[in-house]
Amino acid sequence: MDALTVIRTRRSVRAYTDEPVSEEHIRTMLGAAMTAPSAGNGQPWRFVVVDDPALLEKAATLHPYAGPAKKAPLGILVCGDLNAEKFPGFWVQDCSAAIQNLLLAAVACDLGAVWLGLYPLEERVTAAQKLFGLPESFIPLAFVCVGHPRAEQQPQDRYDESNVRRNRWA
Amino acid sequence: MDALTVIRTRRSVRAYTDEPVSEEHIRTMLGAAMTAPSAGNGQPWRFVVVDDPALLEKAATLHPYAGPAKKAPLGILVCGDLNAEKFPGFWVQDCSAAIQNLLLAAVACDLGAVWLGLYPLEERVTAAQKLFGLPESFIPLAFVCVGHPRAEQQPQDRYDESNVRRNRWA
Repeated sequence: MDALTVIRTRRSVRAYTDEPVSEEHIRTMLGAAMTAPSAGNGQPWRFVVVDDPALLEKAATLHPYAGPAKKAPLGILVCGDLNAEKFPGFWVQDCSAAIQNLLLAAVACDLGAVWLGLYPLEERVTAAQKLFGLPESFIPLAFVCVGHPRAEQQPQDRYDESNVRRNRWA
Repeated sequence: MDALTVIRTRRSVRAYTDEPVSEEHIRTMLGAAMTAPSAGNGQPWRFVVVDDPALLEKAATLHPYAGPAKKAPLGILVCGDLNAEKFPGFWVQDCSAAIQNLLLAAVACDLGAVWLGLYPLEERVTAAQKLFGLPESFIPLAFVCVGHPRAEQQPQDRYDESNVRRNRWA
């Protein structure tokens, strides 16, 4: 599928079939994530690939909308390692770009995914650090649920002219 | 070009030919950006499309590595509108996902781009707010330079096994 169609087809997918996600697809998604740009090319992203059903069940308690984790065959916890930052303060942007690549790669693999935000909410961050045994320098940014989607998505364009001005806003 | 190839081909491109970026390509990049996910679907992104050479010249002073702005035919300032956030604190993630889509759409259009980070550095934020006449609620996240690349890029996979663990980090 061409890149623009993938961008337009990606949607938050919360309902999955029972089919597991293949190791090849996991590798493809992580490779895409790690090919994102990062400040000073610091690549501060770290990933915990979660396929233990007991952990997925617990991940569903991290966030008020994390229910899909319970029925997802796979979760990917995306963290920033503060010790890896080349330019302090940019890790959220770096890791968000990585997640967006990961979500698009999922669509390219005929998978569906949803981005569940953790940081900057202290309670979610602390709970995820404990659940996934993270070192102190790792801040969990998001938990991404992945699976084979139950429903097919159609491409959509959400361009909104009112969000754009030329040269100066005012 | 298929999505995975675009993801692997995207690189920070800082040298451009004199050819301008077409209105159709600007529309495609902005449409891609606005199709990113956002917390509560708040879509807090705002864009200033900069093609005034005097402003591009000034944009080059915003950032120690912003030199490419001087010779780029186009810049896109990406801001978060704090008044548009559905869930406060997530605008950086939302706007970063939008920028990543924009960068990938640039590659799909045979363009090249570079993401110049502004936020969270106070001095850069204040200078950009003034230069582009932003309302108080707008925080400029990044200035993206866009143009027709002078050199061709080859796809690259940056997968690094040491960034990944299964189920728990420790």
